[in-house]
Amino acid sequence: MTLAPTHDGPPAAALGGVPGVAARGTLAEAELSAIDAYWRAANFLSVGQIYLRGNPLLREPLVLDHVKPRLLGHWGTTPGLNFVYAHMNRAIRAHDLNAMFIAGPGHGGPGVVANTYLEGTYSEVYPEIGRDVAGLTRLFTQFSYPGGIPSHAAPETPGSIHEGGELGYALVHAYGAAFDNPDLFVCCVVGDGEAETGALAASWHSNKFLNPARDGAVLPILHLNGYKIAGPTVLARIGDDDLTALLRGYGHEPFFVSGDDPATMHALMAVTLDEVVAEIRHIQADARERRVVDRPRWPMIVLRSPKGWTGPKVVDGKPTEGSWRSHQVPLAGLAEHPAHLALLEAWLRSYRPDELFDADGALVPELAALAPVGERRMGANPHANGGLLLRDLVMPDFRAYAVDVPAPGAVDGEATRVLGTMLRDVMRLNADARNFRVVGPDETSSNRLDALFEVTDRTSEAVILAGDEHVSRDGRVMEVLSEHLCQGWLEGYLLTGRHGLFSCYEAFIHIVDSMFNQHAKWLKTTRRISWRAPIASLNYLLTSHVWRQDHNGASHQDPGFLDHVVNKKADVVRVYLPPDANTLLAVADHCLRSRHYVNVIVAGKQPAPQWLGIDAAAAHCARGLGVWDWASNDGGADPDVVLACCGDVPTMETLAAVDLLRTHVPGLAMRVVNVVDLMTLQPEREHPHGVSDEEFDALFTRDRPIVFAFHGYPWLIHRLTYRRTNHGSLHVRGFKEEGTTTTPFDMTVLNDVDRFHLALDVLERVPRLRGDAAADAAAAHCRARLDEHHAYIRAHGDDLPEVRDWRWPAGAID
Amino acid sequence: MTLAPTHDGPPAAALGGVPGVAARGTLAEAELSAIDAYWRAANFLSVGQIYLRGNPLLREPLVLDHVKPRLLGHWGTTPGLNFVYAHMNRAIRAHDLNAMFIAGPGHGGPGVVANTYLEGTYSEVYPEIGRDVAGLTRLFTQFSYPGGIPSHAAPETPGSIHEGGELGYALVHAYGAAFDNPDLFVCCVVGDGEAETGALAASWHSNKFLNPARDGAVLPILHLNGYKIAGPTVLARIGDDDLTALLRGYGHEPFFVSGDDPATMHALMAVTLDEVVAEIRHIQADARERRVVDRPRWPMIVLRSPKGWTGPKVVDGKPTEGSWRSHQVPLAGLAEHPAHLALLEAWLRSYRPDELFDADGALVPELAALAPVGERRMGANPHANGGLLLRDLVMPDFRAYAVDVPAPGAVDGEATRVLGTMLRDVMRLNADARNFRVVGPDETSSNRLDALFEVTDRTSEAVILAGDEHVSRDGRVMEVLSEHLCQGWLEGYLLTGRHGLFSCYEAFIHIVDSMFNQHAKWLKTTRRISWRAPIASLNYLLTSHVWRQDHNGASHQDPGFLDHVVNKKADVVRVYLPPDANTLLAVADHCLRSRHYVNVIVAGKQPAPQWLGIDAAAAHCARGLGVWDWASNDGGADPDVVLACCGDVPTMETLAAVDLLRTHVPGLAMRVVNVVDLMTLQPEREHPHGVSDEEFDALFTRDRPIVFAFHGYPWLIHRLTYRRTNHGSLHVRGFKEEGTTTTPFDMTVLNDVDRFHLALDVLERVPRLRGDAAADAAAAHCRARLDEHHAYIRAHGDDLPEVRDWRWPAGAID
Repeated sequence: MTLAPTHDGPPAAALGGVPGVAARGTLAEAELSAIDAYWRAANFLSVGQIYLRGNPLLREPLVLDHVKPRLLGHWGTTPGLNFVYAHMNRAIRAHDLNAMFIAGPGHGGPGVVANTYLEGTYSEVYPEIGRDVAGLTRLFTQFSYPGGIPSHAAPETPGSIHEGGELGYALVHAYGAAFDNPDLFVCCVVGDGEAETGALAASWHSNKFLNPARDGAVLPILHLNGYKIAGPTVLARIGDDDLTALLRGYGHEPFFVSGDDPATMHALMAVTLDEVVAEIRHIQADARERRVVDRPRWPMIVLRSPKGWTGPKVVDGKPTEGSWRSHQVPLAGLAEHPAHLALLEAWLRSYRPDELFDADGALVPELAALAPVGERRMGANPHANGGLLLRDLVMPDFRAYAVDVPAPGAVDGEATRVLGTMLRDVMRLNADARNFRVVGPDETSSNRLDALFEVTDRTSEAVILAGDEHVSRDGRVMEVLSEHLCQGWLEGYLLTGRHGLFSCYEAFIHIVDSMFNQHAKWLKTTRRISWRAPIASLNYLLTSHVWRQDHNGASHQDPGFLDHVVNKKADVVRVYLPPDANTLLAVADHCLRSRHYVNVIVAGKQPAPQWLGIDAAAAHCARGLGVWDWASNDGGADPDVVLACCGDVPTMETLAAVDLLRTHVPGLAMRVVNVVDLMTLQPEREHPHGVSDEEFDALFTRDRPIVFAFHGYPWLIHRLTYRRTNHGSLHVRGFKEEGTTTTPFDMTVLNDVDRFHLALDVLERVPRLRGDAAADAAAAHCRARLDEHHAYIRAHGDDLPEVRDWRWPAGAID
Repeated sequence: MTLAPTHDGPPAAALGGVPGVAARGTLAEAELSAIDAYWRAANFLSVGQIYLRGNPLLREPLVLDHVKPRLLGHWGTTPGLNFVYAHMNRAIRAHDLNAMFIAGPGHGGPGVVANTYLEGTYSEVYPEIGRDVAGLTRLFTQFSYPGGIPSHAAPETPGSIHEGGELGYALVHAYGAAFDNPDLFVCCVVGDGEAETGALAASWHSNKFLNPARDGAVLPILHLNGYKIAGPTVLARIGDDDLTALLRGYGHEPFFVSGDDPATMHALMAVTLDEVVAEIRHIQADARERRVVDRPRWPMIVLRSPKGWTGPKVVDGKPTEGSWRSHQVPLAGLAEHPAHLALLEAWLRSYRPDELFDADGALVPELAALAPVGERRMGANPHANGGLLLRDLVMPDFRAYAVDVPAPGAVDGEATRVLGTMLRDVMRLNADARNFRVVGPDETSSNRLDALFEVTDRTSEAVILAGDEHVSRDGRVMEVLSEHLCQGWLEGYLLTGRHGLFSCYEAFIHIVDSMFNQHAKWLKTTRRISWRAPIASLNYLLTSHVWRQDHNGASHQDPGFLDHVVNKKADVVRVYLPPDANTLLAVADHCLRSRHYVNVIVAGKQPAPQWLGIDAAAAHCARGLGVWDWASNDGGADPDVVLACCGDVPTMETLAAVDLLRTHVPGLAMRVVNVVDLMTLQPEREHPHGVSDEEFDALFTRDRPIVFAFHGYPWLIHRLTYRRTNHGSLHVRGFKEEGTTTTPFDMTVLNDVDRFHLALDVLERVPRLRGDAAADAAAAHCRARLDEHHAYIRAHGDDLPEVRDWRWPAGAID
């Protein structure tokens, strides 16, 4: 069985003719030559950024003093990016494209910076880097320089929604940007290095979620330059048959642009881009005008060009252009190797800068005219500074979805199911605006957000069968069994000025720990960049959590994402653990309105007691933590002990412990503090949500024992509070990695966070109960109950009825 | 352009003939019928596990009391797994295969358990679950039951090296197992749900790293049953043309086994497996006997069968077999729906258990004879209990690679480069045993482990070009730009009884946070399973770390993997931060000899001062932490302050601060404590490496200020030490998320962990220095130096020469 031949027929055929105005889209010689000059200018500026700190236009002979003392940058991928950018500029003008550029290859920073400088965007956002010799000098100097800019496309780069530092997320960001932006054309260069990553490998199937009528277009350009840092790349070495099959298997029609002769490559790239744009427009017209619903075969380009193209061919006798030796700085040690300095000068002069820049150092007008103008410039596309386009979500009144809670614990509810009704109406109210999506790995129903399906469906552009439910081409719930795609799509969607929520099993959100890191760093950095407008927050709903993995057991039990999140800058992260449905509503309302944060919400999906009416819930969430008077019996002052709780299951166990202690040790003065907003625990100097030491002391006392039941790893609470006055009296219970396939209550017992252990913790820690007969009897009772539990679960595979059926006694206890 | 037709020609053709002894491998009717019976037995036991707690063979009418009160399990994928297992059993016997089974579909636990029970392995490792009615009852009851077994293939499952709970790692584990096991045949079922994950999507290209001569075979079986939890899967909905192209693009030749009629499917699967085995043997013979070096097109199978195959066709009027409704328990609420109970009984009886099990409850001998025997049973393959096969690495004497350190700080060295020379010899000494590999994402050279390439190469089975260096088909360094593949291959390799090291940029190890979690949980669980033998530790070398990302900036700066790791059980995690090359050698030697841990080693690659001679290094590492007398001037008692440090850069800054303070405040009594083994800081009751409170107090004093310079986030040190006596006097500096493209020293300044800030911290905290003129002058000096630094770096883009050139004064300071 053989595959059809590599698809580069049409362009190659078109090239057979005489240069000039072409029949099938070939450009006039002059136009190609102008593109080449523009490309040379970008390449010149790229090499300049890597090497120079003076003499930026080589108007005098190059000497060592013009060269940076530390050469830190990457040349290898850059000329290819510059090639694409120059050709995209022509295509944008020729076809009036509304285009964005995503540079996947990590170290292509110099290229994207060079191009946004050439088109004028860079100087607009950074006026100190003008289009003259002084500006060029600053442009060169800042690159990979202390306090300057990194060697990747980055938050600082106009037109970028993508940090190239951690590889693999270019394509998924491109799709996120294209969703619900029908006019947008996202040109996404995928490096053959990053193509080896898991996230990128999964991203190709994003085209099964892109609706050609409703969404924009993504043009992937797979850039095969053959090498990573030091070794060959996989996709460059599997042969064109396998590669073509692979890309067709991904649902694409690949167009190959392969070669190393610039003139030939310019002609080929130009016609290929024209053909590809035409095909995309054809697909869109089919969907939009002719109502074609079959999944299209989207075109893409495979650009096979030498690594370090146009750079030094040989250095110290070793092949450099077209080799991994071009990855970083092809010429190093200039001080020790005068020949290298001469090579560098020859290399720079090979771009003929005198033809490209005028006396002042500005790009000559003929070339400047090649760039698109205004917002058509890829560096100035407003979608790439999404906060500019951001519209507030139309929000329903969250109180309308409230569970009626006549008394604490009087009714049960499923928190996420209640939230689902609110999300349904957020979806409905913003349907026309098309700016809200919910993503998750096939867990929308499992996580009980089903109400969403009353107003929308799961998205799919692949085959839909009669037996499918809530699946349609126009759905706004994005389900794919890849946390990477969920996260990446949502990031791209938010970064281009829209809103969303990611619902995920708690344990598996760790799959995107590193993507979260990069997004949090993006938020932190862009907060300090004046021309970047704030975007909507990235909202996580973590459910199906550690305490309720009744049949999945250990693999599904991990609350550590919270620890991971709070390592990031306090001004971008928020963590909420609402204890019931109404608090979840209040928290979700707040998060969906917020800007430029990562909000992590942890909430259960199982039926559980409801504690607060909606007004009390709203007030409690607004403060972030507080005393639950109805559960306390210290009369508002001078408790023997503080029982603190954070998270739905620990809150229930704490209240059950309070109930037990009240019955058995009536004189014990207890205060119950519930924490919804985890960051309130930190000192206010560490986090803006942190309460003052005075408030903390007022809540937790200065010297009484605190028994704290926490949803996650207990040491997180210690970490947040170790500077608080009463930290020495703090005793925290939480998840300590003990878990298996078992019942909900047994999970708490295994980790000592159950009501009996909590009650025992209290009894042991209140000094005046030492030797108290009632206290001793209560402790004996707890121990007996634990024994009974162990025996019962062995015999019946279930929790003790008295535990299962426990209810908070009606009304306040005091 | 059209692709060649779906490849299921040959088997279908073979089926055209009359059943019976076949010409082209078709089996006799009787044999197919026996396989069907075996499959029915496995399906029966699978349904039994999900539903029953009594009446396991339906020898009486089914009543509610026989059914578990909580129905927690998954049927959907199970019959497909059982189908594959039954056919693999035949193929093993027919071709004498040494085969392992990896069940990717997460919720296939009941199937793998049923099959290992049927073949007898289960009862051998769990004698209490015998091959009789009592054993069956226990087998059924334990499933998804408190304290029982999870619903995935799991550590408890004989024959498994794979926890199915977190999806995506089946195929990469399969390849890890196959490397260097030339006789092994790894049958790996990939679910169409998990196929959407990033890790799995990347894993297909693992065949470019599998050498048909040296390694075993992996047979991927892509199981398309069409649905995940509630929605369709991508690969089931892209059409056979795209799917075939995709799989060929991955380098495979797909064989389709599609249908729902059991008889037809048995015949088709049997001939397909024979054909596939023949093709694999042909490929291996080509490579081993005929020295063919072209990359083969490995066969694979696409099994397209209904979800919940043979289960209830319709429940409550809704299609169930072949639908997502079969995902979990197709029949629920049996107490409320008596009709469901009847359906369940009919379903169970449809497998005709009376034909399958004898009076005692044992599988009838005709069927039992279908399973392979002894270690040929997939549940008993010793490779799946790799500790059984584990041989110690032959280790060189690490002292032989030592840097000669005539006095502390007298020479510079690159720690990882020195380690590379030791790793080279580990590789060389174990070359014949073929049981050691180094994995990493294209960073072996970048991380300066180049010495490895003196004795081996990077592995590649794809095209190798003349310009490549250190790339060969037989290399033992596995480089792929996917941390997922690096981690997964190594896990599979270790789990099958071999050794290895994963070298990674520190920031990007977060990409596999979740894989680490699952492996750590595997280690924790298997430690408690008596029949599982300990395996070699998973060793991480994290380098190119947070403090030395001079040109990469923020995206490459994250030391948080340490926080992540220490959340896991103390008995499986170890963290080391050797401050120089000789301590790195000692630590690496220890880790490579260790068993059943995850060892995390953080070490720099840049030239840096060396502190300890090899004997001192070995002694220091053996203790894990200790006073550096040569740097202290407290005379071994009663310091004014303790300067603690952990990590190479913080150690250098601490020593520079000591040097500065000694010069400016000669009377100050300082003690320097260096920490190599991070877990020594925890109380001994929390971690086996934790030092006693007495020892901690002796090192850190009970009341003197401690200024602690740490490699990672500072709060990790607080978290580990908050129960220590002197925690109130502990002041920690570390990475606080401030970082950008800058110089090494400026990075420390940005995070207040530089020598001047550390000195200021000391000066502020020693009570008797209050008002001391020398101390005030020293503080002024520090502040002036910081000002000077800021000005200098702005002007020169580099660190102050006095900082860059700082050296520890020769000899001990007191």
